[in-house]
Amino acid sequence: MRLTLIAAQSLDGFITRHDTPGSDFASAEDRAFFRQALRGFDCCVMGGKTYRIARETIRATLMPERLRMVLTRTPSILANDFLPGNLEFTASSPEQLVADLTRRGLQRCAILGGSQIHSLFLNANLIDELWLTIEPLLFGDGTPLLAGRSAAKLTLLSNESLAPNTLLLKYRIEK
Amino acid sequence: MRLTLIAAQSLDGFITRHDTPGSDFASAEDRAFFRQALRGFDCCVMGGKTYRIARETIRATLMPERLRMVLTRTPSILANDFLPGNLEFTASSPEQLVADLTRRGLQRCAILGGSQIHSLFLNANLIDELWLTIEPLLFGDGTPLLAGRSAAKLTLLSNESLAPNTLLLKYRIEK
Repeated sequence: MRLTLIAAQSLDGFITRHDTPGSDFASAEDRAFFRQALRGFDCCVMGGKTYRIARETIRATLMPERLRMVLTRTPSILANDFLPGNLEFTASSPEQLVADLTRRGLQRCAILGGSQIHSLFLNANLIDELWLTIEPLLFGDGTPLLAGRSAAKLTLLSNESLAPNTLLLKYRIEK
Repeated sequence: MRLTLIAAQSLDGFITRHDTPGSDFASAEDRAFFRQALRGFDCCVMGGKTYRIARETIRATLMPERLRMVLTRTPSILANDFLPGNLEFTASSPEQLVADLTRRGLQRCAILGGSQIHSLFLNANLIDELWLTIEPLLFGDGTPLLAGRSAAKLTLLSNESLAPNTLLLKYRIEK
């Protein structure tokens, strides 16, 4: 199974603008890219906080072609949202989750945040690629891309423009 | 007078690797670019901490063509290093410093860090351009590009490769 972390950040590395949850700062071009990119994945993983922020949108766009998996310490709280094969909740470790998804025949997984989930999978050496949109903004504070110390080395795979001032950088994570 | 902030960061926005001061993480190509780029400036400004870290190198490479100005709350402590027109120390505000440098006929000033100095000049609306080297690294923590909240919007001026995995992005700061 291949895992790709997909995120949008300010140039200085924040995935939220100050204390505002979500990625409303991202450009229309990034949102269009993101929707299109997700079609290439048969599952995606997000944290409980990210799920709660995007819950209505996620529940309105569920499809059997892509399992949405929410990693949360308290999956039972969200049991009413459970839809087998469409929207599931788990407290598994990243390694166990990847093993489970692989056993179910899934092949391409998008890691969708937030920063705790990014760090959890990155520091477990499970991420293959990072697709990062760089918006032309400086926030100075907010939620950082990663929740804590890492030491990842990257190889740049591509560098393209999504919009005149917005870049999409794709990197391979060296393992 | 035109002010350009020049820095190198990890992809996730840190100008130091964890707790290690200085920019030793930067590539040889970035260091070569930086040396070359500085030739286009007749003055540069840095904070006292950045000066102390790079003091020996700075004192070994002084030249009358470029004034090095150190912004510090305690300029008297460094009085022994004072070399008029080459290496000076001041506790001025950013606005006062820019006015003083302009009065002396200087035209192009490089802002060289650290993060406190970046934020001080950025939040005073004094920075015209940001030249940012993006190294292919994720640190997760360290000294951030900016020391606190900002809300700057940028226009991408150029996007070039310094090395196969290292990008140099030049932006205009919208005022």
